[in-house]
Amino acid sequence: MTPLFRRAAAELVGTAFLVAAVIGSGIAAVRLSPNDVGLQLLENSLITGAALVALILALQPVSAAFNPVVTLVERALGLVTTRDVLTLVPAQIAGGVIGAVVANLMFDLDAVTLSTHDRSGSGLWLGEVVATLGLVLIIFGSIRTGRIDTIAYAVGGYITAAYWFTSSTSFANPAVTIARMFSDTFAGIAPASVPMFVLMQLVGGLLALGLVHVLYPHPGKVDQ
Amino acid sequence: MTPLFRRAAAELVGTAFLVAAVIGSGIAAVRLSPNDVGLQLLENSLITGAALVALILALQPVSAAFNPVVTLVERALGLVTTRDVLTLVPAQIAGGVIGAVVANLMFDLDAVTLSTHDRSGSGLWLGEVVATLGLVLIIFGSIRTGRIDTIAYAVGGYITAAYWFTSSTSFANPAVTIARMFSDTFAGIAPASVPMFVLMQLVGGLLALGLVHVLYPHPGKVDQ
Amino acid sequence: MTPLFRRAAAELVGTAFLVAAVIGSGIAAVRLSPNDVGLQLLENSLITGAALVALILALQPVSAAFNPVVTLVERALGLVTTRDVLTLVPAQIAGGVIGAVVANLMFDLDAVTLSTHDRSGSGLWLGEVVATLGLVLIIFGSIRTGRIDTIAYAVGGYITAAYWFTSSTSFANPAVTIARMFSDTFAGIAPASVPMFVLMQLVGGLLALGLVHVLYPHPGKVDQ
Amino acid sequence: MTPLFRRAAAELVGTAFLVAAVIGSGIAAVRLSPNDVGLQLLENSLITGAALVALILALQPVSAAFNPVVTLVERALGLVTTRDVLTLVPAQIAGGVIGAVVANLMFDLDAVTLSTHDRSGSGLWLGEVVATLGLVLIIFGSIRTGRIDTIAYAVGGYITAAYWFTSSTSFANPAVTIARMFSDTFAGIAPASVPMFVLMQLVGGLLALGLVHVLYPHPGKVDQ
Repeated sequence: MTPLFRRAAAELVGTAFLVAAVIGSGIAAVRLSPNDVGLQLLENSLITGAALVALILALQPVSAAFNPVVTLVERALGLVTTRDVLTLVPAQIAGGVIGAVVANLMFDLDAVTLSTHDRSGSGLWLGEVVATLGLVLIIFGSIRTGRIDTIAYAVGGYITAAYWFTSSTSFANPAVTIARMFSDTFAGIAPASVPMFVLMQLVGGLLALGLVHVLYPHPGKVDQ
Repeated sequence: MTPLFRRAAAELVGTAFLVAAVIGSGIAAVRLSPNDVGLQLLENSLITGAALVALILALQPVSAAFNPVVTLVERALGLVTTRDVLTLVPAQIAGGVIGAVVANLMFDLDAVTLSTHDRSGSGLWLGEVVATLGLVLIIFGSIRTGRIDTIAYAVGGYITAAYWFTSSTSFANPAVTIARMFSDTFAGIAPASVPMFVLMQLVGGLLALGLVHVLYPHPGKVDQ
Repeated sequence: MTPLFRRAAAELVGTAFLVAAVIGSGIAAVRLSPNDVGLQLLENSLITGAALVALILALQPVSAAFNPVVTLVERALGLVTTRDVLTLVPAQIAGGVIGAVVANLMFDLDAVTLSTHDRSGSGLWLGEVVATLGLVLIIFGSIRTGRIDTIAYAVGGYITAAYWFTSSTSFANPAVTIARMFSDTFAGIAPASVPMFVLMQLVGGLLALGLVHVLYPHPGKVDQ
Repeated sequence: MTPLFRRAAAELVGTAFLVAAVIGSGIAAVRLSPNDVGLQLLENSLITGAALVALILALQPVSAAFNPVVTLVERALGLVTTRDVLTLVPAQIAGGVIGAVVANLMFDLDAVTLSTHDRSGSGLWLGEVVATLGLVLIIFGSIRTGRIDTIAYAVGGYITAAYWFTSSTSFANPAVTIARMFSDTFAGIAPASVPMFVLMQLVGGLLALGLVHVLYPHPGKVDQ
């Protein structure tokens, strides 16, 4: 097995667990806290952050983007090749869909049900731009200053927070967004809402790329 | 005292505290949040994760698997001997039972009451496979890439999350599963439900072992 | 671009995200948990702490005070110049206001609404003194003993706690206090309440400066 | 100022903030979540743990036991002198009382009110033994194996958990127990209940000392 195959496998497994955590904890939250949407989001956000800490810590030495926007920014910064992108992004998407199916099955639902949860409006779209901008800034700010070993905590903390402080509950990830179409539960998103979410995520990623160049002009170096 | 005796003592003490945390916080959660099962699981899951962070940090330099599946995977990877397994696993089981008894006594219950909480069904069994697969992957992914010092946070985050995202609330541990028979409270499991849970945990561990070989072929080395 | 410009940009971006997290999560908390002010503050406090961990980890190698009191204490300890202060503090205030506007817009509110939330009284003012004293002590205790890499966790933990244990919910930051005037939501503060809050924060910072000299007389050195 | 004076000052300041966090967050929890004792304890326990992380990270290079049992075990292990104990323990107790007074004042209560909260019974006493045994084991397990830098997270996680899994809500600290007499609020303890709590804490500490010798026979060394 080639190293690239292993990296793709890590992206697939990691994104599968990430989406299973997002969707599974959403299902459990609605079942266990049926009358309290605030508590549902608290449960969903803490669990997503906790899962991200674990998955990044264990998979990062192989590959742990779990997110096409992150992989694309890595490409723009010369950290991965175009061939890598064309392998890793499909692995992320496939992993995400597998994670959605597994979550559905664990909770005795049909393997796939298309979400009917419409998510749209200018506030939410701005939310996705801000959410993704922040996520990419956190990740590449850490990378450019050599803080690789703490990315797990930075991303876990950021995503937990962004579920709350962005109005869109911070999808911030095209692979996860696509996967969340396939579960008509708390964390789902209606297919018609997906394109604008993904577009806003790409916009946020692009803005973050510019900001990374301003704040961290020299990779691996801190010059104050 | 021999080193192996000390390792067994650490497994016993650690598993006792782990099970006391699981069962004790479950009892407290039901008493204090009687009408909110979502809040009960949030309390139970956060406390289990927090206890795991503390116990692994302090006991890991001696021995901190607290879990027969983990010890068996260590055997399969050549990290411990068969004699170690035959000493450490009984210590984990004994520790778990002691932890259950202590939790019961602290909350003024009988030392032992058999749980009547039936836990079965295909969704839950799949949940145990996924939960254990993920746990073993997190631990040995960390070990194989030299990230020993962050296993405490990875496991704490993972278990907190898996309580929610797997339908079985992630027992993922035969010693803890056996111990949880002995308290007819929130965290209990009826004896009749135990064999399938343990079997599913072993299946999850075996699948994880295969995945570890794929993702991390060379121990202590990262080759991308 | 000069290094000082980059540091100011980091302060602006970081304070913007910090205030967006404070105000945005406050809006979400009230909307999602409308009848439970305790849950609202739990959500708001955990999210603020989680955001701080992420922001400090990623921006600290450039600049991550996000707080004029902290920057002033850095000046008093000779860590920054007066020119730095005159650049960084305005960047913090501007960033805070931008963050408030972005939070309002994400949640489909007017860009700016002045808060009508009166916050005053001797208990609250003492709260701000204690909150800021503790924050400055945590930060500079860490700096003076070389524990730079764990400031993110110390500050995140401290602020989450101080939201609860100080009666004022721990603003502890003049830039954030000013910014929170511009959102008539959960986290807002009426303009008339701001001057005393800022004054108390400066008093807390001054007391902390004295305490830092007592506890950590020699920078970068531990002499017990 | 002598180093011992500085260490005593650190113990006083740290214990004051710890007790202020315990009592202050308890008052806030009851006021904000008046009808949900489970949520109250969740808030109180998370805030205590978060405060401990911050306080230990910042004060540990000077002195951060905040607990007479811990200081006594340090004495038994030869890490401090008898003269140290006679200086540090009074500083801890004085700091605790100051913290209680400050918490009361911040929330507009009388500076001192004696608690009427009776806490007694065999279950609770066993709880204090277990709670203190675990705390001392976590701390000295970390110290004996050279894991000084992660004690903050181990203790923060442990105490958050022990609030829930011990029936006594884990006082585990004579200085904090004494201080909590002086606030007739959520976290208070009636003076008549204090002696048995302190005695049980000393028993737990003594048992832990024996366990430390078994599990970690050689200071600063791991021999498996």
